[in-house]
Amino acid sequence: MAKDFPTREENYAQWYNDLVIKADLAENSAVRGCMVIKPYGYAIWEKIQGTLDKMFKDTGHVNAYFPLFIPKSFFSREAQHVEGFAKECAVVTHYRLKKSPDGKGVVVDEDAKLDEELIIRPTSETIIWDTYRNWIQSYRDLPLLINQWANVVRWEMRTRLFLRTTEFLWQEGHTAHATSEEAIEETRKILDIYASFAENWMGIPVLKGTKSPNERFAGAVDTYCIEALMQDGKALQAGTSHFLGQNFAKAFDVKFLSKENKLEYVWATSWGVSTRLMGALIMAHSDDHGLVLPPKLAPTQVVIVPIYKKIEQLGEISEFALKIKKSLESKGITVKYDDRDTFKPGWKFSEYEFKGVPVRLAIGPRDLENQTVEVARRDTLEKEILQVTDIEKKIEHLLEQIQKKLYHKALSFRENNTHTVNTWEEFLDIIENKGGFALAHWDGTVETEEKIKEETKATIRTIPLDSKQENGFCIYSGKPSMQRVVFARAY
Amino acid sequence: MAKDFPTREENYAQWYNDLVIKADLAENSAVRGCMVIKPYGYAIWEKIQGTLDKMFKDTGHVNAYFPLFIPKSFFSREAQHVEGFAKECAVVTHYRLKKSPDGKGVVVDEDAKLDEELIIRPTSETIIWDTYRNWIQSYRDLPLLINQWANVVRWEMRTRLFLRTTEFLWQEGHTAHATSEEAIEETRKILDIYASFAENWMGIPVLKGTKSPNERFAGAVDTYCIEALMQDGKALQAGTSHFLGQNFAKAFDVKFLSKENKLEYVWATSWGVSTRLMGALIMAHSDDHGLVLPPKLAPTQVVIVPIYKKIEQLGEISEFALKIKKSLESKGITVKYDDRDTFKPGWKFSEYEFKGVPVRLAIGPRDLENQTVEVARRDTLEKEILQVTDIEKKIEHLLEQIQKKLYHKALSFRENNTHTVNTWEEFLDIIENKGGFALAHWDGTVETEEKIKEETKATIRTIPLDSKQENGFCIYSGKPSMQRVVFARAY
Repeated sequence: MAKDFPTREENYAQWYNDLVIKADLAENSAVRGCMVIKPYGYAIWEKIQGTLDKMFKDTGHVNAYFPLFIPKSFFSREAQHVEGFAKECAVVTHYRLKKSPDGKGVVVDEDAKLDEELIIRPTSETIIWDTYRNWIQSYRDLPLLINQWANVVRWEMRTRLFLRTTEFLWQEGHTAHATSEEAIEETRKILDIYASFAENWMGIPVLKGTKSPNERFAGAVDTYCIEALMQDGKALQAGTSHFLGQNFAKAFDVKFLSKENKLEYVWATSWGVSTRLMGALIMAHSDDHGLVLPPKLAPTQVVIVPIYKKIEQLGEISEFALKIKKSLESKGITVKYDDRDTFKPGWKFSEYEFKGVPVRLAIGPRDLENQTVEVARRDTLEKEILQVTDIEKKIEHLLEQIQKKLYHKALSFRENNTHTVNTWEEFLDIIENKGGFALAHWDGTVETEEKIKEETKATIRTIPLDSKQENGFCIYSGKPSMQRVVFARAY
Repeated sequence: MAKDFPTREENYAQWYNDLVIKADLAENSAVRGCMVIKPYGYAIWEKIQGTLDKMFKDTGHVNAYFPLFIPKSFFSREAQHVEGFAKECAVVTHYRLKKSPDGKGVVVDEDAKLDEELIIRPTSETIIWDTYRNWIQSYRDLPLLINQWANVVRWEMRTRLFLRTTEFLWQEGHTAHATSEEAIEETRKILDIYASFAENWMGIPVLKGTKSPNERFAGAVDTYCIEALMQDGKALQAGTSHFLGQNFAKAFDVKFLSKENKLEYVWATSWGVSTRLMGALIMAHSDDHGLVLPPKLAPTQVVIVPIYKKIEQLGEISEFALKIKKSLESKGITVKYDDRDTFKPGWKFSEYEFKGVPVRLAIGPRDLENQTVEVARRDTLEKEILQVTDIEKKIEHLLEQIQKKLYHKALSFRENNTHTVNTWEEFLDIIENKGGFALAHWDGTVETEEKIKEETKATIRTIPLDSKQENGFCIYSGKPSMQRVVFARAY
């Protein structure tokens, strides 16, 4: 194997952490809980960003930028929001340093204390709705469909690269509407965008549904989410879309004159995905040989490695390789030709395998003779010799196949790890021993949900949108229930 | 005029501020000194970002992301850097809020005090070089050509939208090299990229040169810059590229094993442009009718407005207009068709004029008959009637013409406002009465530069790269000098 790291079986958590670090995706920084996203990891994030950004714009959204700082008092305006967000956060109290009296270094200048502390945004509803008050007067100003790409900070005690970090990157959409119906429609539209992105780009099947009151966003009337299942049987929330009702409009006094000439509070949504998606992407497909990336999000889709004994052979091979590179690029495929003489082919093979490059082409002197190329695919580790005729079509097709295969593999995994359970014993067995999603009846109360969480660490991941109505009994309380919800332990 | 605001002549500062706000580019936020970049302004910034990002990538750079927070002690590592940057900055001292004892709102939890304060990055050399220490061991790891798009915070007392704000958006490149020569070459390469972007995209001619020691970046051996001249005769520094020598490598102990197997300190550069460029763009071309945007950076390059008396006419006009829109889009032109019935054509005309849309097409019933379209260009406010045959080629050509014209207009302005001065009296006259660039001899000392600044508020904007060697005498001290430098009052 390329790099010395544990298998998933041996130690899943360590496997993930080592993979992130050794594949040059990210690392811990000198600042506790904050990560450095390295160029290879960031290149994947840029693909995620670019794709989502286009999907948002294609549905009429525009980008803007709001301040990093939020005045402390803003948090107290929305009662539930302050409970959820104004706790573990970075607080700016001063705006100046001065020379330390001992001459060594700098100290905080106590004369430069802020009248009101500033909070580094953990999410931007408050500052944005404070701004919207001046932007919205009439129904003509609606809807307002705004998104922001930004960094946010939530002071986390236990952090894990990409999955939970003190600072993370994300997008947060904040829309304003004239009616409740339109806002709910927007919330659902975004949920569909997120699901489509997860499935068609990341190759990760997701459940779409709502959150139980316990898991709802602080300040939301309803939280929609997409939930994915990781290879260790734990769930990962990959994106949320909130219907905020008129809560923030009321908190920040945002009213509009309706077509009927009545002054009404504005309806709101907010929605976001973050660098957490990177964690999902890494965990969903990778194996004990390293990273596996879906072609649509791989910074390099194809790598070409020349194989030669004597340096004199390189010229001819390069000519052949560069012709192939060019024809692949004509199909929009991202190709890297690695002709570095400082590394052996074997080293390069395991390096690109470890970094999850979907397709590797190797070209040696015999390939020149035979007009062939050796094609290795990362997902199955299979190799075959292909004639170079129409190579661009063959590789294009192969990349599509890999993309599909990864999705279907993840889908099979989820199907095999989704269990319909009817008793508490079955439930415990799934949660404690097998992992995965447990579809179970629940009596709909916060108390039951909390007790189940206390006893098993499993939470309701989602109440699926497509779950059918059926009579049943809560696995915990035995009370009647009308539909199954999805339980799991989660990231 | 579209909006009630002063002419440049009446009050240039107010003209600028009103323009930014009334053209929906940005506004002041609830947080002192921080701005909200509105969707229209942000769309321009996205064009700037996208273009520069491609230029960086085409020259081998990659993006990454480093933490927002910098431990306070990091600033003290590089002696000059701490002088320049660790003063006016946002200091995070606590990581938790709690419910206020009186039950109203939240207060800082004094139990959650950080052992070491964290500074919101004013620039990232320190945290990045602390990271590079682990990334660089051998000459094989070099060069490292990394860029970051990020927000930074410098606590400014007097702020102006885009030009000087407490939080701003920027890119910061941080590269590491094996030799001094290579690092200097990188510094110059980036300077050329900045200059080319300013001239070919923003339509703003710039002077390329170095900074005097007084104006140098804190921690740099040499600072290169591009300087532009605004319509009020003040200079604006539009981008800087620093050769940092081994200063940061020494401060953070970043060494590499050279090809000759010797342990050496790494050579560094850093370079950046920010949302300040937006200020330059707005000021460089706009007029008393509002914003003027160069076509290459305009979010909407062409707007089409239908003119009709009866709503029944709209269908036919729309069909005609959408055909034109489609043919323009086939040339990669960004077109908006504004068929809103809630606004009159006259209102739309002045709105798009005010927002600087480069070309406006108006189409009425007579145009349908004659197969014509009325074309208005924003820069000259000229109108003409064109046959629709090959309209996409005509408009494409017109956009190119406008782009060039804006540059040449700005260039003429700069030429007319660049003065060669030989005496202190001439210098004072230019600085106090006329404005613009004053090319003058300077004795090369910090003292003289500071005295000139004290007496006139003019600073050395740059020592031009192409300035010829000539014998002369310092305008202030009368001491001998070998070349002229560029003085001006500046933003």
